[in-house]
Amino acid sequence: MIRMISAGESHGKGLSVIIDGCPAGLTIDIDFINAELRRRQQGYGRGKRMQIEADEVEILSGVRDGKTIGSPIALWIKNRDYANWQGRMNVGELEVDDLVTAPRPGHADLAGVQKFGLDDVRNVLERASARETAARVAAGAIIKIFLKEFGIRLSSQTISIGNIEVAEKSRLIEDTEKSLLRCADKKQEILMMKRIDEAAEKGDTLGGVSEIRALGVCPGLGTYTQWDLRLDSKVSAAMMSIPSVKGVTIGERGISSKPGSMAQDEIFYDGEKGFIRHSNHAGGVEGGMSNGEDIVVNIEIKPIPSLRTPLKSVDIRTGKAVDAQKERADVCVVPAAGVVAEAMLALTLANAITEKFGGDTINDIKTNYNQYLKRVCKISS
Amino acid sequence: MIRMISAGESHGKGLSVIIDGCPAGLTIDIDFINAELRRRQQGYGRGKRMQIEADEVEILSGVRDGKTIGSPIALWIKNRDYANWQGRMNVGELEVDDLVTAPRPGHADLAGVQKFGLDDVRNVLERASARETAARVAAGAIIKIFLKEFGIRLSSQTISIGNIEVAEKSRLIEDTEKSLLRCADKKQEILMMKRIDEAAEKGDTLGGVSEIRALGVCPGLGTYTQWDLRLDSKVSAAMMSIPSVKGVTIGERGISSKPGSMAQDEIFYDGEKGFIRHSNHAGGVEGGMSNGEDIVVNIEIKPIPSLRTPLKSVDIRTGKAVDAQKERADVCVVPAAGVVAEAMLALTLANAITEKFGGDTINDIKTNYNQYLKRVCKISS
Amino acid sequence: MIRMISAGESHGKGLSVIIDGCPAGLTIDIDFINAELRRRQQGYGRGKRMQIEADEVEILSGVRDGKTIGSPIALWIKNRDYANWQGRMNVGELEVDDLVTAPRPGHADLAGVQKFGLDDVRNVLERASARETAARVAAGAIIKIFLKEFGIRLSSQTISIGNIEVAEKSRLIEDTEKSLLRCADKKQEILMMKRIDEAAEKGDTLGGVSEIRALGVCPGLGTYTQWDLRLDSKVSAAMMSIPSVKGVTIGERGISSKPGSMAQDEIFYDGEKGFIRHSNHAGGVEGGMSNGEDIVVNIEIKPIPSLRTPLKSVDIRTGKAVDAQKERADVCVVPAAGVVAEAMLALTLANAITEKFGGDTINDIKTNYNQYLKRVCKISS
Amino acid sequence: MIRMISAGESHGKGLSVIIDGCPAGLTIDIDFINAELRRRQQGYGRGKRMQIEADEVEILSGVRDGKTIGSPIALWIKNRDYANWQGRMNVGELEVDDLVTAPRPGHADLAGVQKFGLDDVRNVLERASARETAARVAAGAIIKIFLKEFGIRLSSQTISIGNIEVAEKSRLIEDTEKSLLRCADKKQEILMMKRIDEAAEKGDTLGGVSEIRALGVCPGLGTYTQWDLRLDSKVSAAMMSIPSVKGVTIGERGISSKPGSMAQDEIFYDGEKGFIRHSNHAGGVEGGMSNGEDIVVNIEIKPIPSLRTPLKSVDIRTGKAVDAQKERADVCVVPAAGVVAEAMLALTLANAITEKFGGDTINDIKTNYNQYLKRVCKISS
Repeated sequence: MIRMISAGESHGKGLSVIIDGCPAGLTIDIDFINAELRRRQQGYGRGKRMQIEADEVEILSGVRDGKTIGSPIALWIKNRDYANWQGRMNVGELEVDDLVTAPRPGHADLAGVQKFGLDDVRNVLERASARETAARVAAGAIIKIFLKEFGIRLSSQTISIGNIEVAEKSRLIEDTEKSLLRCADKKQEILMMKRIDEAAEKGDTLGGVSEIRALGVCPGLGTYTQWDLRLDSKVSAAMMSIPSVKGVTIGERGISSKPGSMAQDEIFYDGEKGFIRHSNHAGGVEGGMSNGEDIVVNIEIKPIPSLRTPLKSVDIRTGKAVDAQKERADVCVVPAAGVVAEAMLALTLANAITEKFGGDTINDIKTNYNQYLKRVCKISS
Repeated sequence: MIRMISAGESHGKGLSVIIDGCPAGLTIDIDFINAELRRRQQGYGRGKRMQIEADEVEILSGVRDGKTIGSPIALWIKNRDYANWQGRMNVGELEVDDLVTAPRPGHADLAGVQKFGLDDVRNVLERASARETAARVAAGAIIKIFLKEFGIRLSSQTISIGNIEVAEKSRLIEDTEKSLLRCADKKQEILMMKRIDEAAEKGDTLGGVSEIRALGVCPGLGTYTQWDLRLDSKVSAAMMSIPSVKGVTIGERGISSKPGSMAQDEIFYDGEKGFIRHSNHAGGVEGGMSNGEDIVVNIEIKPIPSLRTPLKSVDIRTGKAVDAQKERADVCVVPAAGVVAEAMLALTLANAITEKFGGDTINDIKTNYNQYLKRVCKISS
Repeated sequence: MIRMISAGESHGKGLSVIIDGCPAGLTIDIDFINAELRRRQQGYGRGKRMQIEADEVEILSGVRDGKTIGSPIALWIKNRDYANWQGRMNVGELEVDDLVTAPRPGHADLAGVQKFGLDDVRNVLERASARETAARVAAGAIIKIFLKEFGIRLSSQTISIGNIEVAEKSRLIEDTEKSLLRCADKKQEILMMKRIDEAAEKGDTLGGVSEIRALGVCPGLGTYTQWDLRLDSKVSAAMMSIPSVKGVTIGERGISSKPGSMAQDEIFYDGEKGFIRHSNHAGGVEGGMSNGEDIVVNIEIKPIPSLRTPLKSVDIRTGKAVDAQKERADVCVVPAAGVVAEAMLALTLANAITEKFGGDTINDIKTNYNQYLKRVCKISS
Repeated sequence: MIRMISAGESHGKGLSVIIDGCPAGLTIDIDFINAELRRRQQGYGRGKRMQIEADEVEILSGVRDGKTIGSPIALWIKNRDYANWQGRMNVGELEVDDLVTAPRPGHADLAGVQKFGLDDVRNVLERASARETAARVAAGAIIKIFLKEFGIRLSSQTISIGNIEVAEKSRLIEDTEKSLLRCADKKQEILMMKRIDEAAEKGDTLGGVSEIRALGVCPGLGTYTQWDLRLDSKVSAAMMSIPSVKGVTIGERGISSKPGSMAQDEIFYDGEKGFIRHSNHAGGVEGGMSNGEDIVVNIEIKPIPSLRTPLKSVDIRTGKAVDAQKERADVCVVPAAGVVAEAMLALTLANAITEKFGGDTINDIKTNYNQYLKRVCKISS
């Protein structure tokens, strides 16, 4: 089991993340982790903070001589702007009195202060901030290095921004990497950017849909045998754990409105490749298991609720109506959410792999994996 | 923590389910459990098995003198048709040789035999069958009795069947209970039934969307503080664990295409009720926590893949093309999926409640819960 | 991960146990399970109930055609005496009013009614009874069948009863199986029996020590890398979960009083067998991992607290001093505890194996296991 | 649930630990954490490293304005000697070639390199080092602050060093705090020190026994209802997870050799205090639950295996016999193990408390706890 647990506030000292259970023998390229962090920070429609904080990871433990050694890996991502916030974010006594008392609709703010019995909304919003996803992306980069050993690659592409949807999707990872919106449809991308500019001007925000793909996944990950062990259940939990994600679909969107005769992936056999499909309505998951096709997940991202035109709220000390606190924020985070979702899908698949093929060393796991691949490619006789 | 774990094959002796961690002091009405089982079995578009097997639960342990005692509760649901299947389903040597070798597309069949190294598809399809959800509904009935003590009620209503969507939804639980399709829109319901009849005639199947609601949930369940503890993540996992569910949305469907200014639930204060909202775009979840509004979840159910017109498959012994095995099945399971989803949402909320308010006895938990309610209704000063 | 969860009261209908995650392809011999149940019931010093209830298991699911299919396995052990208890143990309204209000010292009784807010001690004692361990032994039998595939065998032998200790231990499983006290030292066994007779006469009880061994375990199970993943930690948790067990030692008893120079197992190399030891002070666990030697665990079992001469207690309704309730019970359960401990050690090792070598099919796991064995036998060059 | 997960090597940059799920509203005194770290480092018989590294904690997140805010708490303990080790411990390419190829008996070394497929024993010994327990003690200090709110205090005292045992124990925490060996028996302490000096001279090491106590624990923590939820099981797992601990006893040592009539804690009732005992053979745990008496745990610590007189080992590259690597180490770690055990017992109890009384804010938990205390003190009528 690979566990990922993080800590850290948005304007605190930085983010910590521990990845426990990562196998030994992986070559860790710190530049790759930083590149992943940059992918999260990019995207048309992001706020100014993304420029201030070109995140850089420091590996604190678990890697020696460039390789994982089986021990837990601790990563540290410094918050570059901390000096400006120390007075308000101090571990010890605060030096700056800057109580936030107006919870922002659409955020954790109100339920957070209620839950934890707090009187300063900042105590909630600092941890509830999507800043935390940088820790996930850093950890996810290490997990991607693990998955690469099995030929598994992850990608994300923007399907829609607001009500602008792509006409065509791409299966080429390169196409989306070149786009500021992670969008493979150049024509629609222009419309999307225009829409973002308009929203920015109005102080409004936009959501959208991103498609996450895992290519090269073997069949049989997850299981139908107990409800809480299904791969689709775990994928869904991982996706929905991302801030602003309100919907998850595995496989073809809108499948529920199709007749059954047009919604299945018939089974064929190829002497070389084994069992194959010519369609992928199911998004690579049947019966709670991977079926050997690409895992395809769509996530629906709500428009972020930090608007320049403030929303109505209430002062938690007095109950009086006030404008919600405005935090510096983005117009559209769909491309970033896609990158975070890659990390979360990677973690889910890596766990399914170690559960099925064991753990400890990358070589052992690969040996076990390859033997299984050979077995399932053959017809049983 | 309330754990639910089940066992049992579709045509085996029956289904077992253990609910561990259910608090003491709940009055268990066995008729209510059976009524819930019937709710799952009903629905326009179900196959004949639903008549054969009017499920009845037997409580094996954990309840004494009509009350839970804190011990694990074991339930047993006999398969009424087992006598006819014993030869093929025997625990010991089989008496009837009836090897299934053609995996059905859209089911666990193929990946299942690959994963578990099996040569008889029946060894997969028996457990992967949605029959298993009867165990969840029985357990869910007990969980609903628990939630009722907190004033939490669950409901499900059909939003669409195939491409027929309701024009209006209802918040009255009674409206949907009266409908064979769990549909509150009488006009659309007629169209839905017609569409089901047409599909049945063609040997086709239909999916749809069901909306699940939990009314009366306090704010602060779940948390934003760690990714794997968010309520939305857990709700999503529970929903996606239901066979045929391919999509989960929390809150308003299509929220991603709206501008941020129209997608938030502004915050107001009422001297009596405390903090309130006049809208519920968020579906009762903000920042990974319940916010005091109804929890609203939509699940997208694929058309079931057991068609009367067979799909193409391959014999797993020979690799030769064959027609997929036809199992007796339904045309449309949307209403049933809604009932199962109620059980799964109930389990998720019950766990969030015991996590936040402790466990052991219903009276203690209620005392703790009510004190919290009082606290969060007040402004902090 | 192999999960075991049970339900059932001592005088209720019976015991249920679900084993989830057991790999497919194991041949299940029901006679072996029943033989294990008998091993638990035997032993000099057991009460009359052991005769009444020669336990027999029924497999409800998860096994077909004599083999596991990867699905959860549900077992059922009927309480043979239930007819005589039904009035007092009914799931619905009780027919016999027989309130127990005097909690027995040394049992769960008092803390149990406090915890669960109960007014009838029977609601506690029924589940807290060691009867529940029959479910563990039945499940453990299936796990032993799994372990046997790796050449791992489990045994238990009595080391002491009261203050009578064996002079010599045996490594031959047969020696202990022939003994009514699971004691390999024939001379001391006679003294032990005499001591049991004396205790029985006085209405007293006896505890003792049992040694549990797992032979044939590969090195590298468990890990030092995170505190909650250590094998010794998990073994200890499994042992201490057995009713009446108050102490657990891994390796040589009394090791803490020896100097370090006499407490280690030096390392040697044998061209054929690989790394070997000539001693086993460590009991097969170094640094939280198995080291390839026998796993040796001693458990200290307290004298059971159900004495014929009653202990002082208090009526929970009135606070008045009363004699504790007397339940029919045994004089000495040391041999039985050993058998239960075998089951629990088996479960712990099976989980460590699936964690390290993956799961799903016994053939896959064995292939992975054997490849690893080959790797660790070789010197690295 | 309060999770604790750590990372870090003995001579790496430092130790990280994340405590997830700690309730909001606790006042964190960083000096107290550092004082706890010093308690771990003290003790007659420790090596020189303890002087080099007077550990100091840095709080990276989860605490603001001196208080916990409900967010995960990340702690950092710098390794002061890292500069001298950087060349050998670098995350990137090593600068100093200093391969360790002789695994030390009694350590994780051999099984570790086998398990993780490593060719440098240092990759194992760095994480397997007891240095990691500093992270536990720092986290444990925060947990102790939590427990103090419920009036729960933890202590440890040395019961034996080698074969020198105390004649008398003390229940006064102050008595043990004043002793360099955490030993309350001044007379035996002198003998113990002498024995340590002798061992040091011979290059030998000593183990011993430490008793850990938790005072002021309410009844009803843990449960008898499912094997893996018992408090004794969890306490045992926590204790045995400490490096060098080979045995755990709950309650009176040697209870197994006593007759049942002398091994129970009879029950009495006091109008003010409620149910009381006049003895504590059970060590505060009956039926897998706390019973309101002090939790008393004895841990048996093996003599540490790093001897100055080297043990026999084998070069893992060649299979040739060699002397085991000597790492700088201590003669006796019994007092330190006691301090670590306090932290682990604290964590176990804190989890049992949040499980029973809920979480999120210290005030809510205390309210729930106190209401329960009131309930269980009263007789039921």
